[in-house]
Amino acid sequence: MRRFEKLAPGAGATAVALGLAAGALMLGASPAAAAVSAETAYVLNTFSFLVHGFLVMWMAAGFAMLESGLVRTKNTATICLKNIALYSLAGLLYYLLGYSLMYVDVGQFIGSFALLYNSSGAELALLNAEEATPELVAPVVENGYAVMSDWFFQMVFVATAASIVSGTLAERIKVWPFLIFVVVLTGVIYPIQGAWIWGGGWLSEIGFSDFAGSTVVHSVGGWAALTGAVILGARKGKYGPGGRVNVMPGANLPLATLGTFILWVGWFGFNGGSQLALGSALDATAMAIVYVNTNLGAAAGVVAAMALSQVLYKKIDLTMALNGAIAGLVSITAGPDLQNHLLAIVIGAIGGILVVIVVPLLDKLKIDDVVGAIPAHLVAGIWGTLAVGIFGDGDLGIQIVGILAVGAFASLASAALWLALKATIGIRVSEEDEELGLDMAELGMEAYPEFGHGSRTI
Amino acid sequence: MRRFEKLAPGAGATAVALGLAAGALMLGASPAAAAVSAETAYVLNTFSFLVHGFLVMWMAAGFAMLESGLVRTKNTATICLKNIALYSLAGLLYYLLGYSLMYVDVGQFIGSFALLYNSSGAELALLNAEEATPELVAPVVENGYAVMSDWFFQMVFVATAASIVSGTLAERIKVWPFLIFVVVLTGVIYPIQGAWIWGGGWLSEIGFSDFAGSTVVHSVGGWAALTGAVILGARKGKYGPGGRVNVMPGANLPLATLGTFILWVGWFGFNGGSQLALGSALDATAMAIVYVNTNLGAAAGVVAAMALSQVLYKKIDLTMALNGAIAGLVSITAGPDLQNHLLAIVIGAIGGILVVIVVPLLDKLKIDDVVGAIPAHLVAGIWGTLAVGIFGDGDLGIQIVGILAVGAFASLASAALWLALKATIGIRVSEEDEELGLDMAELGMEAYPEFGHGSRTI
Amino acid sequence: MRRFEKLAPGAGATAVALGLAAGALMLGASPAAAAVSAETAYVLNTFSFLVHGFLVMWMAAGFAMLESGLVRTKNTATICLKNIALYSLAGLLYYLLGYSLMYVDVGQFIGSFALLYNSSGAELALLNAEEATPELVAPVVENGYAVMSDWFFQMVFVATAASIVSGTLAERIKVWPFLIFVVVLTGVIYPIQGAWIWGGGWLSEIGFSDFAGSTVVHSVGGWAALTGAVILGARKGKYGPGGRVNVMPGANLPLATLGTFILWVGWFGFNGGSQLALGSALDATAMAIVYVNTNLGAAAGVVAAMALSQVLYKKIDLTMALNGAIAGLVSITAGPDLQNHLLAIVIGAIGGILVVIVVPLLDKLKIDDVVGAIPAHLVAGIWGTLAVGIFGDGDLGIQIVGILAVGAFASLASAALWLALKATIGIRVSEEDEELGLDMAELGMEAYPEFGHGSRTI
Repeated sequence: MRRFEKLAPGAGATAVALGLAAGALMLGASPAAAAVSAETAYVLNTFSFLVHGFLVMWMAAGFAMLESGLVRTKNTATICLKNIALYSLAGLLYYLLGYSLMYVDVGQFIGSFALLYNSSGAELALLNAEEATPELVAPVVENGYAVMSDWFFQMVFVATAASIVSGTLAERIKVWPFLIFVVVLTGVIYPIQGAWIWGGGWLSEIGFSDFAGSTVVHSVGGWAALTGAVILGARKGKYGPGGRVNVMPGANLPLATLGTFILWVGWFGFNGGSQLALGSALDATAMAIVYVNTNLGAAAGVVAAMALSQVLYKKIDLTMALNGAIAGLVSITAGPDLQNHLLAIVIGAIGGILVVIVVPLLDKLKIDDVVGAIPAHLVAGIWGTLAVGIFGDGDLGIQIVGILAVGAFASLASAALWLALKATIGIRVSEEDEELGLDMAELGMEAYPEFGHGSRTI
Repeated sequence: MRRFEKLAPGAGATAVALGLAAGALMLGASPAAAAVSAETAYVLNTFSFLVHGFLVMWMAAGFAMLESGLVRTKNTATICLKNIALYSLAGLLYYLLGYSLMYVDVGQFIGSFALLYNSSGAELALLNAEEATPELVAPVVENGYAVMSDWFFQMVFVATAASIVSGTLAERIKVWPFLIFVVVLTGVIYPIQGAWIWGGGWLSEIGFSDFAGSTVVHSVGGWAALTGAVILGARKGKYGPGGRVNVMPGANLPLATLGTFILWVGWFGFNGGSQLALGSALDATAMAIVYVNTNLGAAAGVVAAMALSQVLYKKIDLTMALNGAIAGLVSITAGPDLQNHLLAIVIGAIGGILVVIVVPLLDKLKIDDVVGAIPAHLVAGIWGTLAVGIFGDGDLGIQIVGILAVGAFASLASAALWLALKATIGIRVSEEDEELGLDMAELGMEAYPEFGHGSRTI
Repeated sequence: MRRFEKLAPGAGATAVALGLAAGALMLGASPAAAAVSAETAYVLNTFSFLVHGFLVMWMAAGFAMLESGLVRTKNTATICLKNIALYSLAGLLYYLLGYSLMYVDVGQFIGSFALLYNSSGAELALLNAEEATPELVAPVVENGYAVMSDWFFQMVFVATAASIVSGTLAERIKVWPFLIFVVVLTGVIYPIQGAWIWGGGWLSEIGFSDFAGSTVVHSVGGWAALTGAVILGARKGKYGPGGRVNVMPGANLPLATLGTFILWVGWFGFNGGSQLALGSALDATAMAIVYVNTNLGAAAGVVAAMALSQVLYKKIDLTMALNGAIAGLVSITAGPDLQNHLLAIVIGAIGGILVVIVVPLLDKLKIDDVVGAIPAHLVAGIWGTLAVGIFGDGDLGIQIVGILAVGAFASLASAALWLALKATIGIRVSEEDEELGLDMAELGMEAYPEFGHGSRTI
């Protein structure tokens, strides 16, 4: 029997401890023997940040593969470059500037402009001592986790926000202007609204609730992408006369599928790690619930998107299924701590349905979103944030205030930046370069130099 | 010196604690100070389920890539869709039905039909309390792990069983009938035999031993695949007149290689997590052994398959090496707790050899297994289960009983379901659609629309 | 607020414990209640080896994808095969021979020739006992970690060293001679110099410092690759008359990008796990710093390589950016424990710059390194080892001694082995086979049988 017998050997010892513990608890004697010690909690909290942080970092590869699979071959190397470059820049900027702005000495709207972020004095004292005495360990442990583990975990979130932008604007934006946008987004724009919500600023104070970032991360990335798409314009030939929409199919769907699976596994870090602690039974229990809801939300998003695309179009669209997974994940991200798992299924399914509805709607508006990031991240992010007010413990009115405030700030700041870049160094490649493809034009190379060019090449 | 000097700073503190502990243990005084506290064990057990669970979830991506690499381009998008859809459906069905049937109130053959599965009352009381009092924590901790973390870990196993089926039946099965099969397999068939072995049913009671699922997961997926392959028939043109076997080579071998590596890394979760606990020195020690045997078994499978294919065919076949890795992994899965690691090498090597022998055998029988899942999962799964009786602590007779019982049940149930589907909505695409490829026929899209079609296209 | 409020529920309990702990510490009473118990430390140390070990194992997939993406299609299946085969052989050889040579009873230069490596007697006694008594647990816990978890973690490092060689020598080396080289490299050469540094040998004694293997792993792989490249010669047609260098572009750049991301995420295991312990606040704090420096070093490598390639060539070269990431990672690997994170940025950036400078330099010397492994692993490895003497707590003179000693040993041993292989079974495929491609010549298969052959095919 898998659940009990195999636990038996270990459970033997554990059962003894439990017996002791239970006895102790009943008698009120030395409960500390059965609890998690403070230093153990510190180690577990820190390790949770590191493990979940590397999972979220891995999502950078997911976005790179998803977008590589959904662009055309002539722009594939460029999207690869953008993805590794944006992850790199996001990390550097969040170290040099963003983290302090978001988390250090935050007032109503922003934190400090202090450059850099380092281990605490207590940590350095411990690390550099001859011996780890209890007097040196105590003040470190009192913080609850290693400060740089928190930095690492928060950093990978800002990178996710930046990743969302690159997909929407693919195939026509110049590399360097895009990277300058990333610098400002990750160094300034993201941290400011982040300070409002997660840094203890005004939205936090009025009770806005966003567990792992449907709004803070996904909607913000989505707003930056949407304003960029409007200002940059559609790809040449995407929208023909008479409302005709030309399909420009992605060149490598297995890579897009791989990217979606990477995002899915990474999301256990995104949401699970956002419990922010693992040093108690309560935290471990809550984290398990978060994992389950995350998976159910994504699964429901896939099935709903597949079913609806079958009904509407009589075909199951793979890219709809993939974006259904992402939309399900984004939808559950604001409130993955729901104790009723059926609600997670409902929330994720609605996310998947939104994708199938919004993708053609954007085409009607001639907003050219190459990978479907606006429905999957912005729309599903708004939905997920609302859902916390509907099904979870948030206040719907306050959730709407937060969505609008962050939307207004992120759109205006992004639009100002896109327009400034457009007016100065320009953001769009020339028509010839777009025709030729960004890989040859900007990088001087081909992503797949040996593969022939099939009938669907445009 | 890497092993001791670098441990020194931490080891300083640890050494003190160890000294204290050893002293305490010798004197018989307060051993609890040196042991793992009950709540810490709870956290570690839960975290093990979550970490190893996300590793096994990642195997879903491995199957998707392996199968994407081994089918032809015209069926690639469909196999991607099937893989993400089956993982989603498996998770939903196992939540709605399967888990209760397998683990809740199991009698001799099945558990309960109670829909849904939720956190325990004690957990909810703790989560919803104002304060985490010892009185609230104790009953939660007594369970040993968060109940939803166990659900998560068990769920990813059922998804693995379903993944095995999709590869064998690729390139000619219709999408929706396949997904209906997945619903029944993951909601009913898998949980019933799972209840026999891991849920405490009759095979568990007579002492059948399957540590991580050579039989429960891999053979069951293999039997479902085998019956499906027989009922569905071979791909058009696969078997010519006079016993001629037409090679239909996989379109993207780097993806197949990637898939194999993903499966390999995920298998540390599959086998390592199946220790089911991490809250004691005993469990951690046992888990380390499991990791080592898992790796050695896979490595031996690769080398044996390579060497044998060199001897037999004078060439090293990459797909044989990849399936050798998988067969090595499946073979060691029933008993990865062997203390003699040389035996793990022997068991894995025999698994690799079986693949090289069985692949042409299936072709002789005109059973068309597109990716080699039957040798790698079914045959190696049987071998691994037998090996526990030969080298491990299982009884060979009882192992054979279990293999036969599960084989009979899984084959008959699968066959009945395949035949019912065939008789009603049909399971096979038309000849024209098979010729055209499932991607255009069922999805209306191409996996690689821009890549040319080379000389080996069939 | 993300940092404190969400911690609140758990922090409630923790705060109580901390209060108790702090009180206890102040009073000097029973500090053990607040510290990590010895058995908990054992579990955490062991789990750190396993988690970080599977991350490093995953790097094998990263090398496979990086190299698959950077070779031409006609040699892609072969490079896939080599990568899975070398990982398998490295694991087997390190079990059968290498680990003992490197870590067991090491004198000045080598350890023991004892075959195999097993759990300790104390561990086996605990595992096989009826009951886990404190008397059985204590001697296990005293070791600090499960011995096989250490073996697992060390094993994945030797596999990394072997992976480096395959990329440089791609497209013209025969499979079996390469694999024989891997057997000797991983069974003998790597362990001997490893014993000098990490096993407690002479370089360890004089104070040579290499935290996670800039020299032990990356330079050694690099020296083996460099000597191989010189003895094997360049690919046919690579260097034309008059110093002309023919570009032979990689066939699948998204795969190369994926490979780089895999290496990056795996490197958190490589460097983070090299803290070798997680059982105290000190270790967890140090590990967090290692993660941060690892990420900043890689990010700086990418940005520096991109910027320099833009300045020098007016284009951003994707492969330079990818190799910049790897060089940044290798550079920071000798000293990722720096408390000043700006130095990590500097060190990684210099690594990225070295790649852009050394790649054309090697071409000038007609040393044909297919994937750029020599600049990224050997040159950056030397730089990273020096940096510990410049910025870290190492002695620059001693670092140079270590670099020279390991370089001399690894080069001479590798060269002797390459020459012996060349003189006996030969190491290079025939001109016809090289023209045809190794996939058809050695494996009898194609990596992408259906994709057409574009204009850049050579």
